[in-house]
Amino acid sequence: MPFIALLRHGQSQWNLENRFTGWVDVDLTAEGEAQARRAGELLARSAAPFDKLFTSVQTRAIRTGNLALDAAKLSWLPVERSWRLNERHYGALTGLDKAETAAKHGDEQVKIWRRSYDTPPPPLEPGGAFDLSKDRRYAGVELPRTESLKLTLERVLPYWNDAIAPDLKAGKNLIVAAHGNSLRAIVKHLFDVPDDKIVGVEMPTGNPLLIELDANLKPLSARYLDETRAEKLPPLPA
Amino acid sequence: MPFIALLRHGQSQWNLENRFTGWVDVDLTAEGEAQARRAGELLARSAAPFDKLFTSVQTRAIRTGNLALDAAKLSWLPVERSWRLNERHYGALTGLDKAETAAKHGDEQVKIWRRSYDTPPPPLEPGGAFDLSKDRRYAGVELPRTESLKLTLERVLPYWNDAIAPDLKAGKNLIVAAHGNSLRAIVKHLFDVPDDKIVGVEMPTGNPLLIELDANLKPLSARYLDETRAEKLPPLPA
Repeated sequence: MPFIALLRHGQSQWNLENRFTGWVDVDLTAEGEAQARRAGELLARSAAPFDKLFTSVQTRAIRTGNLALDAAKLSWLPVERSWRLNERHYGALTGLDKAETAAKHGDEQVKIWRRSYDTPPPPLEPGGAFDLSKDRRYAGVELPRTESLKLTLERVLPYWNDAIAPDLKAGKNLIVAAHGNSLRAIVKHLFDVPDDKIVGVEMPTGNPLLIELDANLKPLSARYLDETRAEKLPPLPA
Repeated sequence: MPFIALLRHGQSQWNLENRFTGWVDVDLTAEGEAQARRAGELLARSAAPFDKLFTSVQTRAIRTGNLALDAAKLSWLPVERSWRLNERHYGALTGLDKAETAAKHGDEQVKIWRRSYDTPPPPLEPGGAFDLSKDRRYAGVELPRTESLKLTLERVLPYWNDAIAPDLKAGKNLIVAAHGNSLRAIVKHLFDVPDDKIVGVEMPTGNPLLIELDANLKPLSARYLDETRAEKLPPLPA
């Protein structure tokens, strides 16, 4: 039965500064690099013979994947990247300090934008510092201007179906190095988590979630590889 | 017209120890990592908009490619790896100290093994410390037991023709992070270097060779990106 390990990138510069990041291409901090290496050691010890790495096209996830593979002595694995594994687009909140945003719009409104399943923040205005329409990595991609978790899931899912699921069905063991919300979308899909429950599922950083799947890609078991940390697992589907 | 940048990995632990390395998966030294980052800065300044990275399946070339892309802010580039871009297999010389080997077999014999176009060293005996038949990355590959530069070129060329050349013909600008002899094989092919002249072509480490090609993949121009270093260029074909 195939395995998939979901690895959320470690601390980035804007995590540290408590700013909404989304699609802005912020790099890891030294702490984030250390978390990635530690995740690689956990992946190596898990004894699942991994065959391939998937990443978003954002530097913090790519470098997390590279550093983890280096630490696991698996840097030779084939790698495939897609913008569909990117973090949720935070719209007009992009770049803002989270505390300042709460002071301005009120805690309740910010909580809705962050935690509601299907309410996106206001859209990002074109032409500003965070407009990615000139970024070569998105050539040919219709860029989102804001996303709810629901919209994030809707653009992750085609990539899951077209690229990731076929590899799993062929028996390959995969690592996905990505982001809090793109991984949450995958967990929602795999574990069939209801809309109102998925906001309670938090992907931890630097602690891979290893899921064993049956031939229909239904989860048979799931565990976080760092057993010293008490993480809440998504409930296995009945 | 498409560009291809040929990047030889920087110093590895066995370069430092002066041992024949070949297919042994030795990592970069700190100096080798710094050379890779420097190469990435040179690639970024070259202004060629790169579209894709090719690497061997050996850690020292993969990490050189990753570190160079990080430094160039191009970590998002698609990556493709192949064992066909590996270093030349040094047969029974693998792992030996170069000075000790010269003392044992004589300078002349070692010079022939190192510098002749078509004389491979004696084959590596199976079952020893450097036998890679159990290494998962080579599953399904008929492993060489020794190689001359000619044999190296003969296994690089199918990958050039099937994977690299089609991307160039589609107008993509490529980076190839690989090894002294696999890159020398590509140079021999591209510049049509005669058998007895290719041994005189030395690929420098950490100094990308940027080649502009015409639609038939014939070199139009070639330059090393570090202009402070006096490197000998392969002669352009007539």
